[in-house]
Amino acid sequence: MRALASGPQGPDALRPLLTTVLDALRDGATARSGPLPAGGPEAVAADIRAALGDVLPEQGDEDALRALVHTFAAGAADPADPLCTAHLHCPPLAVATAADLAASALNPSLDSWDQAPAASELEALVTAALAEAVYGKRAEAQVAWPTAQVARPPALVARPAEPAAQDTQPAAQVAQSAAALVTTGGTESNQLALLLARELHGRVQLVCADTAHHSLRRATWLLGLPEPITVPAPTGTMDPAALDEVLGELHGTGSPLLVAATAGTTDAGHIDPLPAIADLCRTHRARLHIDAAYGGGLLFSDHHRAKLDGLARAHTVTLDLHKLGWQPVAAGLLAVQDPRDLRPLEHHADYLNADDDTEAGLPDLLSRSLRTTRRPDILKIAVTLKTLGRQGLGALVDNVCARAQELADLVDAHPGLELYDRPTISTVLFRPAHATDHIIAGLRRQLLTEGRAVLGRARLDGRLWLKATLLNPHTEPGDLAALLKLVEGPPRR
Amino acid sequence: MRALASGPQGPDALRPLLTTVLDALRDGATARSGPLPAGGPEAVAADIRAALGDVLPEQGDEDALRALVHTFAAGAADPADPLCTAHLHCPPLAVATAADLAASALNPSLDSWDQAPAASELEALVTAALAEAVYGKRAEAQVAWPTAQVARPPALVARPAEPAAQDTQPAAQVAQSAAALVTTGGTESNQLALLLARELHGRVQLVCADTAHHSLRRATWLLGLPEPITVPAPTGTMDPAALDEVLGELHGTGSPLLVAATAGTTDAGHIDPLPAIADLCRTHRARLHIDAAYGGGLLFSDHHRAKLDGLARAHTVTLDLHKLGWQPVAAGLLAVQDPRDLRPLEHHADYLNADDDTEAGLPDLLSRSLRTTRRPDILKIAVTLKTLGRQGLGALVDNVCARAQELADLVDAHPGLELYDRPTISTVLFRPAHATDHIIAGLRRQLLTEGRAVLGRARLDGRLWLKATLLNPHTEPGDLAALLKLVEGPPRR
Repeated sequence: MRALASGPQGPDALRPLLTTVLDALRDGATARSGPLPAGGPEAVAADIRAALGDVLPEQGDEDALRALVHTFAAGAADPADPLCTAHLHCPPLAVATAADLAASALNPSLDSWDQAPAASELEALVTAALAEAVYGKRAEAQVAWPTAQVARPPALVARPAEPAAQDTQPAAQVAQSAAALVTTGGTESNQLALLLARELHGRVQLVCADTAHHSLRRATWLLGLPEPITVPAPTGTMDPAALDEVLGELHGTGSPLLVAATAGTTDAGHIDPLPAIADLCRTHRARLHIDAAYGGGLLFSDHHRAKLDGLARAHTVTLDLHKLGWQPVAAGLLAVQDPRDLRPLEHHADYLNADDDTEAGLPDLLSRSLRTTRRPDILKIAVTLKTLGRQGLGALVDNVCARAQELADLVDAHPGLELYDRPTISTVLFRPAHATDHIIAGLRRQLLTEGRAVLGRARLDGRLWLKATLLNPHTEPGDLAALLKLVEGPPRR
Repeated sequence: MRALASGPQGPDALRPLLTTVLDALRDGATARSGPLPAGGPEAVAADIRAALGDVLPEQGDEDALRALVHTFAAGAADPADPLCTAHLHCPPLAVATAADLAASALNPSLDSWDQAPAASELEALVTAALAEAVYGKRAEAQVAWPTAQVARPPALVARPAEPAAQDTQPAAQVAQSAAALVTTGGTESNQLALLLARELHGRVQLVCADTAHHSLRRATWLLGLPEPITVPAPTGTMDPAALDEVLGELHGTGSPLLVAATAGTTDAGHIDPLPAIADLCRTHRARLHIDAAYGGGLLFSDHHRAKLDGLARAHTVTLDLHKLGWQPVAAGLLAVQDPRDLRPLEHHADYLNADDDTEAGLPDLLSRSLRTTRRPDILKIAVTLKTLGRQGLGALVDNVCARAQELADLVDAHPGLELYDRPTISTVLFRPAHATDHIIAGLRRQLLTEGRAVLGRARLDGRLWLKATLLNPHTEPGDLAALLKLVEGPPRR
């Protein structure tokens, strides 16, 4: 069991082990016989404890791979099961998963070229293409912020007093194409967006809707920034009039301002009014970040892309292809309109990017991330984009959005169920009519504990809703009916 | 190509794709015919551009998996090649890589129990066992810091003036066993260690040797902490007398102090004098973090474990099993002596850990990380620990350490080569005698560009050294001779 995954013997060493894994995945799923294991946390924990035994035994056990993968699969909440539909937790494409194996086997690390010659170039090309998908080809990009006057170095004042600079600058003033960095997910992307804002503009005041992702607030804590000021979202999306008021009030404080809008809220999948927000940011000279971790995937779809109008006006955009992109975790990105905004990440470590090596043409990778050692998550993304093409990915997006509309139709037509709102992307919120919040929370946990369905929860308008986030393109209309069947009656017990 | 990796059809969908990947890995390695591709960055980039073409084509291409994995492998620096020995970049074990496939396929996300029932329990058990490997069973642990008096909440004064509290507290006062968090690597672990220190003690002043990892300095920048104060390491390890002096001077400032020691420096693999440093931290009431990203793996070895004496006296310890643990990236950990020190990470997001769900017994996972969505890197680690056992892993550690001694012997015996020092772990620094730094840097790049060997570099004692970090347990003595053959002559050109 000392065989290595790479080298000349690697593929032959892997072959039988992969057969073991596939068989254990199949047998484990059969043992589970539902979207998640029955019995709740205690039963699952007991199974894991039994399979694991002594975590670090003196002597090895050649059966460990089979036994642990079996128990792992038997105890999984399988996102490919149509009744596993709580979270932004997608079933990965087989082709992406297969590609990810090559990343594990060769183990390139994206902190220096001599650990990742091909992977580093692949990352450069694919991130550039994804940035272009957000911002368009350079000539088409709209630059809302007067880029040429953005303060560099960070010590300069971030919000120049010159009113003449408020207009959008012509694209010709932007030096290079947009760029994107690979992250571990939307949380790291949001954190990076705030870090860049801090370094470019000073101690920024974040302004976001109360529906924004919790990671934004956590990032202000991490980075030592003031607590976010929240803007109401009475209909689920940020209220531009309220934003205007807040930004107007903050103008007098002299703080540099960062607005974070959301394209695909976690609870309801709503998209903030991006063009109006971008206009307000221009008026009030605020920097704009858009968290499109969920909604970003709509870019692939001819039918839904228009919902993201205004996205390209953000200085930074969070994307996350382990949501509407069907990737194994992790597949996050931060797209940046002006690549010069990435300068604060420039970093030097002589063993990785010595000046004479960089001058001699070895690419400097250390400034692409806050991490040092870094797995090439870009490979699975590249393989997916090429294998399915934009239309293939767009068809998956269209599919899950259509399923969400159908589920909303079913809820709407059901006398015992109440629909929160028509879905914007693929999230449907609903609740049994006349049930209390307490009963609804208990029903959700009962379905979890019995291993029958994974539904999420969201508190909106002061009431608790069940949440179905449809991310499985293989879900059939009959699955939707089965899901509702589980919640339509009065809860047992 | 819309097939999913999980669900009942997942294993059968994956099977032919995995065959494609293994064949492409084999053919790509054959095409490369060395530890890394010949031709340097431009040639590799051209190959990737040609294979990739349009990154996001309108229509998909079913051959993309084969073509991209082939080019990825042909353009890799293969850590399983004995002449690929620059960095802390290990060849992964086949069994770990195979286990990692199951994580990709089922795609659990460790931010809520209902996305990762089995994975979350597995993580809890395996991290506890690894924390125990660092800190021993609770009754044996030594607590250098007066834990009971550590200020909580963070607003309180971190370093109480009471001299009576300076002694080590009896283990009985520690409430729970040590804990560990999973991270993306040593960099995130170090960052978390600093964050915990900031939250527990206020604006800490970091003190570390000038040989400490660059990520510590970067973390102070990220977290808004003062720049680190560095202590000289004239012989490659932190000088305790100098540390004593620095801590004594800082005592008057009233700043809470954090000392970061290193067990396995990046450049030379040196281990700081941990017991002496722990004593000084106790005397000066400084918190102690030890970065054992490299050296932590010595815990598995009966022959080398004693080099880590003192490790258990640190409040936090960075481990990294994608170094001396033969894991695919990522496999980082932060071990924490007192689990109460993790309280600053407590975090609430109603859709993931609502109070009534937590009270009803659903485990709260959100406080285990700064990330939200999180891949179960623990599965491959668990499978590896169980498959090889402690002795099996220890044998791999002993093997690479023995190879390093042999390489040092060969260098020492070679009239044309100069050895920097005897290896402490598995890093050997050497240089052609009488060559200039400029020639040595050029020789390293020439070997890279010709695709013949991947050697690292380190600047120590004012001179540039070639670095071989031996992490491949399959390296044979003959490989070491071949490596030296490449550098022993006067550089061509």
